[in-house]
Amino acid sequence: MTRTVVYPGTFDPVTYGHLDIIKRISKLYDKVYVAVAHSKEKGPLFSVEDRVKMLEEAVSDHKNVEVTDFDGLVVDYAVKKSVRVVVRGLRMISDFEYEFQMALTNRKLTPEIETVFMMPSESYSYLSSKLIKEIVGLGADISSFVPGNVEKRMKEKLKK
Amino acid sequence: MTRTVVYPGTFDPVTYGHLDIIKRISKLYDKVYVAVAHSKEKGPLFSVEDRVKMLEEAVSDHKNVEVTDFDGLVVDYAVKKSVRVVVRGLRMISDFEYEFQMALTNRKLTPEIETVFMMPSESYSYLSSKLIKEIVGLGADISSFVPGNVEKRMKEKLKK
Amino acid sequence: MTRTVVYPGTFDPVTYGHLDIIKRISKLYDKVYVAVAHSKEKGPLFSVEDRVKMLEEAVSDHKNVEVTDFDGLVVDYAVKKSVRVVVRGLRMISDFEYEFQMALTNRKLTPEIETVFMMPSESYSYLSSKLIKEIVGLGADISSFVPGNVEKRMKEKLKK
Amino acid sequence: MTRTVVYPGTFDPVTYGHLDIIKRISKLYDKVYVAVAHSKEKGPLFSVEDRVKMLEEAVSDHKNVEVTDFDGLVVDYAVKKSVRVVVRGLRMISDFEYEFQMALTNRKLTPEIETVFMMPSESYSYLSSKLIKEIVGLGADISSFVPGNVEKRMKEKLKK
Amino acid sequence: MTRTVVYPGTFDPVTYGHLDIIKRISKLYDKVYVAVAHSKEKGPLFSVEDRVKMLEEAVSDHKNVEVTDFDGLVVDYAVKKSVRVVVRGLRMISDFEYEFQMALTNRKLTPEIETVFMMPSESYSYLSSKLIKEIVGLGADISSFVPGNVEKRMKEKLKK
Amino acid sequence: MTRTVVYPGTFDPVTYGHLDIIKRISKLYDKVYVAVAHSKEKGPLFSVEDRVKMLEEAVSDHKNVEVTDFDGLVVDYAVKKSVRVVVRGLRMISDFEYEFQMALTNRKLTPEIETVFMMPSESYSYLSSKLIKEIVGLGADISSFVPGNVEKRMKEKLKK
Repeated sequence: MTRTVVYPGTFDPVTYGHLDIIKRISKLYDKVYVAVAHSKEKGPLFSVEDRVKMLEEAVSDHKNVEVTDFDGLVVDYAVKKSVRVVVRGLRMISDFEYEFQMALTNRKLTPEIETVFMMPSESYSYLSSKLIKEIVGLGADISSFVPGNVEKRMKEKLKK
Repeated sequence: MTRTVVYPGTFDPVTYGHLDIIKRISKLYDKVYVAVAHSKEKGPLFSVEDRVKMLEEAVSDHKNVEVTDFDGLVVDYAVKKSVRVVVRGLRMISDFEYEFQMALTNRKLTPEIETVFMMPSESYSYLSSKLIKEIVGLGADISSFVPGNVEKRMKEKLKK
Repeated sequence: MTRTVVYPGTFDPVTYGHLDIIKRISKLYDKVYVAVAHSKEKGPLFSVEDRVKMLEEAVSDHKNVEVTDFDGLVVDYAVKKSVRVVVRGLRMISDFEYEFQMALTNRKLTPEIETVFMMPSESYSYLSSKLIKEIVGLGADISSFVPGNVEKRMKEKLKK
Repeated sequence: MTRTVVYPGTFDPVTYGHLDIIKRISKLYDKVYVAVAHSKEKGPLFSVEDRVKMLEEAVSDHKNVEVTDFDGLVVDYAVKKSVRVVVRGLRMISDFEYEFQMALTNRKLTPEIETVFMMPSESYSYLSSKLIKEIVGLGADISSFVPGNVEKRMKEKLKK
Repeated sequence: MTRTVVYPGTFDPVTYGHLDIIKRISKLYDKVYVAVAHSKEKGPLFSVEDRVKMLEEAVSDHKNVEVTDFDGLVVDYAVKKSVRVVVRGLRMISDFEYEFQMALTNRKLTPEIETVFMMPSESYSYLSSKLIKEIVGLGADISSFVPGNVEKRMKEKLKK
Repeated sequence: MTRTVVYPGTFDPVTYGHLDIIKRISKLYDKVYVAVAHSKEKGPLFSVEDRVKMLEEAVSDHKNVEVTDFDGLVVDYAVKKSVRVVVRGLRMISDFEYEFQMALTNRKLTPEIETVFMMPSESYSYLSSKLIKEIVGLGADISSFVPGNVEKRMKEKLKK
């Protein structure tokens, strides 16, 4: 049972915090779908293709991890993939409230799918894609927060 | 005393969580004004007329509930209606902080008006108008979250 | 409706924060029962008689406030007094969680009784009976936190 | 991978909230050890034997659930059982902080063991063994909170 | 050591809460740079020049306080000014999470700079520039929340 | 100004989290009093002499740090030492609430003394003396959480 899981997110862009969670999940499950939500309504910095690309580069060492994208509800995506478990990372109280609200809503929509939560390493507990986008525009060196390929693409974005 | 209260909100749109609170209030007070804030600055999905209409349809069974709208501060509206009590629902920690900040500000502006807080049923503790708008756009069946008339109007909105 | 309410607590001892809430309640309702829980299991500093006495002295100006005591569940006490509303003060997040847990439990036990929450003045948001008992033992002047009669009795307690 | 998990706790006594989590876990994993911590330092109401007994009666329908007990660190117990995943339920913010603190400490002690968190149904979000012990002493009917066998034993305890 | 500190913010506009913190800082340190972040991405109501001006008028009594502006990271600004301490006010849980996230990020970027937190008076614990902008548009009298010069400028803004 | 500060606590026992804060404070101020509260009412594991001793051994490298003890209110101790600033570490939300309550109470008692808050490294954000005492009794290796001298004394305590 539960040998395959979905780890959904916007990943705009992927951070070392996401990668820490992916590494942990990949050790616990046979197969991990890292599922990039289109999230057009959030006005992401990177296109869904770019976000998938950056993730693929970053997770290439984990053989049981597959990066995909989805548009719509994560529970519908999980059903389509015949997956029963959605994994989410929890870092802070504010995560907690939003995640619980989302998980209870998803449970109401599709009761047979369960959300489980995992903690990133405390070294990444303060990392967020939003904060990284904020500080990179102010000139911050973000090499401690995101992989090299992401850093490079963010700098290219900024030049435009 | 306190026989009339105001239950203000944006109600964009009304959910079963709001209706649970309205039902509870209507049992405790002689008269309840459900007051729809124009909230133009929030860019609501529904016009104030539509939001009032949907509420009127949903509360028609409660004889002591009157749906109205207001533009401006809720405390000014309460004074105009000679009401001393504003009721707000509390679901989560993040509600709590915003509501307390707002209630303390209102108390400073109009000390004679008191805010009292009530809890919805735990079955609705995770419901929010914002989340419903988010998931309906992703194809979710929202019939467990909002009354039938609201669901119908949301689907019409989406088609446009 | 709801012209009579119960404001329950341990009041070990009553603080200016409790009195601020009582003053607010007494303006909103026809009759207020301030109900002192025996709370033997908490090992209170003052006997229930002393706690009732200190409250009576402190609320003597509010003609519609009656201080009583009760042993058992607050919802059972409310039913006995034919009261439908229990009022609780909320100061902080930690209050919030405990109070919600208690209120949902009470609602399950006696659905016809509703808990409503009120905020003390921000000047008393940090006050707690527990903290006052802690600091008085360390030599603090507590005259800004509790009425004179309570201060006097606390000092007598300490001498023993 | 991760086909066996440990769900540790004090279970003093088991509540419908715990049972909701156990039911969810038993659907996701091949084998679940419900592990009753001795927790002598907490001065539990029921002996470890009684707590194991009450759990066994309550989970007898779940063929892949085994109730055991342990003394010491849950990570040491997990290692002994060759289990890599510890499951914990999360209901509230205060759970969240304590659980994260414990999980990060456990991760430091035994990095190869991962803690995953699950949510009980919102119907049980307010339930706690502590609150149940508190209210049963005040005369509350606890049949909505714990299984019949637990209710019976709690009443016997009270008579003594 | 630490005789000079930076107190950064958007100050859109300055409130009595900010001024309370500035007064406290000015008593603890030899020199205080109140540093107005350009924060163009936040779409501030007032230009950076106006925000600096309003602050200068409000802090003119504190001889060791200098109002400046900066664009970029606060840690870079601190390094430029040879300052080792950044002071931030903390009012609420939501502040706490954002501030800790920001402070840990800043510490990673520039480990030699330390963030210290101070509390405003509880009288200002509910004040926020955002809420003030919200209610002034709804007709609120904001003279208890901001100094006279700020109130005047806000009204001028609204007329336009 | 503010060249001398007090860092008070129970330190039962000192952890790497406390030492991280002390190291940070010692870089920002000329002189740091690490002040061990007697805290008899908490029933500490170690005598105040032992707690002072363990701290002295752990901070011996910091020439501007002096370990002392005090009985009574920290603000009275600060006044006696002519110190205007009390430093406290903040790790979590629950710290935050208690610390703010204590700091506002202290400010009421002695307005001229200010509490400032600092964050430990995120590596120590989950550490607490209470948790360490709990797990050491369950057989945990605590060498990542406390200095060697403290570990040794804790083991001696356990043998008795």
